[in-house]
Amino acid sequence: MSTATPFVIAAPPQAAIAVAGESGAFPVRRIWCVGRNYLEHIREMGNDTREPPFFFAKHADMVVADGATIPYPPQTKDFHHEVELVVALKSGGRDIAAADALDHVYGYAVGIDLTRRDLQGAAKNKGRPWEIGKSFERSAPCGALQPATRIGHPSKGKIWLAVNGVEKQKGDLTELIWSVPEIIAKLSEQVTLEAGDIILTGTPAGVGALNPGDKVECGVDGVGTLTVTIGAPE
Amino acid sequence: MSTATPFVIAAPPQAAIAVAGESGAFPVRRIWCVGRNYLEHIREMGNDTREPPFFFAKHADMVVADGATIPYPPQTKDFHHEVELVVALKSGGRDIAAADALDHVYGYAVGIDLTRRDLQGAAKNKGRPWEIGKSFERSAPCGALQPATRIGHPSKGKIWLAVNGVEKQKGDLTELIWSVPEIIAKLSEQVTLEAGDIILTGTPAGVGALNPGDKVECGVDGVGTLTVTIGAPE
Repeated sequence: MSTATPFVIAAPPQAAIAVAGESGAFPVRRIWCVGRNYLEHIREMGNDTREPPFFFAKHADMVVADGATIPYPPQTKDFHHEVELVVALKSGGRDIAAADALDHVYGYAVGIDLTRRDLQGAAKNKGRPWEIGKSFERSAPCGALQPATRIGHPSKGKIWLAVNGVEKQKGDLTELIWSVPEIIAKLSEQVTLEAGDIILTGTPAGVGALNPGDKVECGVDGVGTLTVTIGAPE
Repeated sequence: MSTATPFVIAAPPQAAIAVAGESGAFPVRRIWCVGRNYLEHIREMGNDTREPPFFFAKHADMVVADGATIPYPPQTKDFHHEVELVVALKSGGRDIAAADALDHVYGYAVGIDLTRRDLQGAAKNKGRPWEIGKSFERSAPCGALQPATRIGHPSKGKIWLAVNGVEKQKGDLTELIWSVPEIIAKLSEQVTLEAGDIILTGTPAGVGALNPGDKVECGVDGVGTLTVTIGAPE
């Protein structure tokens, strides 16, 4: 064949998360998310508390760092915050036993699963996919990773989010329906996990709407904090 | 902080698709998919033909090349083929007008949206996300890209898929509910498209189950063909 068509597409930039106290960054391969992993959040959304949690996803390039300004996204009138503990994997595998799961963890961070609730709701009501409500640019703010070698593996501690200084979300890691080891084990039954995968582990009760100009601060005890600002629509 | 924790995670390999007649490869940034974009497929699935198509996604690293053997995936007893025209973007943007959309297209390929239908079905029945049914390793076989500079922008022509030599899926690009320019325009209202994004444009009627040992051949007139083999479970 001819080679008259020059090939001009550059490889995209590698998505990455800063690591606290390190000069390197953690390259994000994929973002997996757990839905309905805190009982009070299932109740506030009117969902069935007898059903187990489940998984969904965001594209890796949707991560943004601590301090980011996130323009109010298009096509929504109900843009929600969902603070979550983020787990970053240094190795992967299939059918990982819960007892071995923490061996695959590089570290932890505080993240937000930003959600266009009205688009997710439309999807839910019609049996349609969640991606357009969940996976859009800058929809995954993520604070600096804390290596597990430094902080251990948090299984208790307050998880919280405040908007303009007013606390909106509050929970404790002890309330996770699927613990971090269980999440890794269950997800690895469905897909082969890989180094670079990060998992958002679900949000506690208190989710709500954000507006342009809002300052969003959140944290997980023993892990860190994350602050983002919501900007005007682009 | 200490730097006692060596940073050891390598960046993941860049997902890529071969380009016909070129030595370079097209780097895949994200995979977007259109659901319910052929009328006869909406009917065969028992869905509402009055509702418009919609979008979902797969992780970029789920592409596999022409000729691949794809192990029968875990957690399913109803693994389906869905042949699709694939559109690869050389540039992106927000709110792209349909009239300008083809300017952003690098080229076209034949792809398969491999689907764990029973997991997607579980999701659908409960208003749950589609990812676990749609986004798993090797779930996006993709043939070589044909640059639009070489083949133009196909808007008609047969799209087909055969299993072990028996034709299962058959349609024509004229039957697309959302045309390629409309797909690009509508998706760019929801997210900012980027160079390296590929879009699977929906599947015609005739989807069905695959089994270990099956040889799957498919094609789009004027674009090319793709052959994969289903292997034993890993």
